[in-house]
Amino acid sequence: MKFCPDCGAPTETRVPEGDTRPRAVCTACRAIHYINPKLVLGTIPVWNDQILLCRRAIEPRYGLWTLPAGFMEIGESTAQGAMRETLEEAGARVTLGPLFSVFDIPHVDQVHLFYTAQLNDLDFAAGEESLEVRLFREHEIPWQQLAFRTVTATLRFYFYDRRTGQCLVHTGDIRDIELPHDAPPALDQPR
Amino acid sequence: MKFCPDCGAPTETRVPEGDTRPRAVCTACRAIHYINPKLVLGTIPVWNDQILLCRRAIEPRYGLWTLPAGFMEIGESTAQGAMRETLEEAGARVTLGPLFSVFDIPHVDQVHLFYTAQLNDLDFAAGEESLEVRLFREHEIPWQQLAFRTVTATLRFYFYDRRTGQCLVHTGDIRDIELPHDAPPALDQPR
Repeated sequence: MKFCPDCGAPTETRVPEGDTRPRAVCTACRAIHYINPKLVLGTIPVWNDQILLCRRAIEPRYGLWTLPAGFMEIGESTAQGAMRETLEEAGARVTLGPLFSVFDIPHVDQVHLFYTAQLNDLDFAAGEESLEVRLFREHEIPWQQLAFRTVTATLRFYFYDRRTGQCLVHTGDIRDIELPHDAPPALDQPR
Repeated sequence: MKFCPDCGAPTETRVPEGDTRPRAVCTACRAIHYINPKLVLGTIPVWNDQILLCRRAIEPRYGLWTLPAGFMEIGESTAQGAMRETLEEAGARVTLGPLFSVFDIPHVDQVHLFYTAQLNDLDFAAGEESLEVRLFREHEIPWQQLAFRTVTATLRFYFYDRRTGQCLVHTGDIRDIELPHDAPPALDQPR
C-alpha cells in the first residue's frame, strides 16, 4: 500500500506506537492501514454418491477442477457466501449442511472454509468463471487435475469420512495436513 | 476507499465488468480494490475447571471481559494467530486443542474463530490491551460484563459441552445462534 486510501498522500512502512508489526502509515493524515488474510468460502455439493465440481475458466489454475468457492464479501455470513459462490460458479442451489473444513494457507494469506451441501436439484450450469460443471463419483474424481490443495484435502477427507462414518471438522495448515491413509491406492500417487 | 492505494489517484465506486458488486476502481490506473471481512482469532484458555479471561484496556468495550482474541495477521495460520493473541493479551502460553467455534458477525464484517486451549502454566499477566487477567470457574463468569456476543456464546457452549460430553464445532450467524437450554438460570437473563 503505497498511498493512503483515506487522503491519497504517500504512506511509509513503520511500526506504530504500541504495535509490534510494520504497517502502512500515512505521512499526512497519520492513518494506520492494516492488511489481513482473506476468507475463501466454498461447498461440497453432493447429489447421492456424486460431487459437483467446476472446471476453472479463470487464472490461477485455468482449466483445472475445483469445488465452487470464492472470496467472502462484505455483509454476508460464511454460509451465505458459500451458497452464493455455488450459485455463481456452478449455477447450483444447495441446502447447506455442517461446516466440513477450515484450512490455513498462510503463504498466500488465505483461509479456506468448506461446508457440506446437498444439491436441491440437477438444474446446474457453468457460471462465468467456469468452463464446465459436472458430477463425479469417487472413482471419477480427476485427482491429478484439481486446482488447489485445499480442494484435494477436502475431497479426500470427505470420501474417507463417508466410508468410515467419521464426523468432524477438518482443520490445519494445508502444508502440514496428513491426508487419510486408507484412501484408494490411486489417490496416493504424488502430485 | 477514496484514493487508490497503488497510485494515489481518486477512486470511483462502480461495478467492474464481469462483477456483480460495486468496487472502488481507480480513475487513473484502473486498479480494482476489494474489501473483505476480517478474521478474529482467539482461544478458550483452560486450567482444570477454570477459564482465563481478560478485562479490556481498549475500546470498544473498555473494561468488559473477553476471551483473548484479535485480528489475524498476514503470514500466520489461524492456530498461530490464536496462540499469538493469547500471549499478547494474557501473557499466557497455551497448547491448542480442537477448533471450537466459528461465528459470523456480518454486520461488522468479521468472523470470530475460537480454539480450545490448555494453559501450559499459571505464569500469565495482563498485556498492553488488558487491564487484568484472571481465572474464572463457571459460576464466577461475569456474564453481564462480557464484551462480545461471540464470547458469551463460546463460553455458554463450552460449559454446556463440558457438562454433556457434546463434542462439535459451533457455527452460525451470531444473531441467529440459539444458546444451550440447560444453562444455569442466571445465564438466561436478557443482556
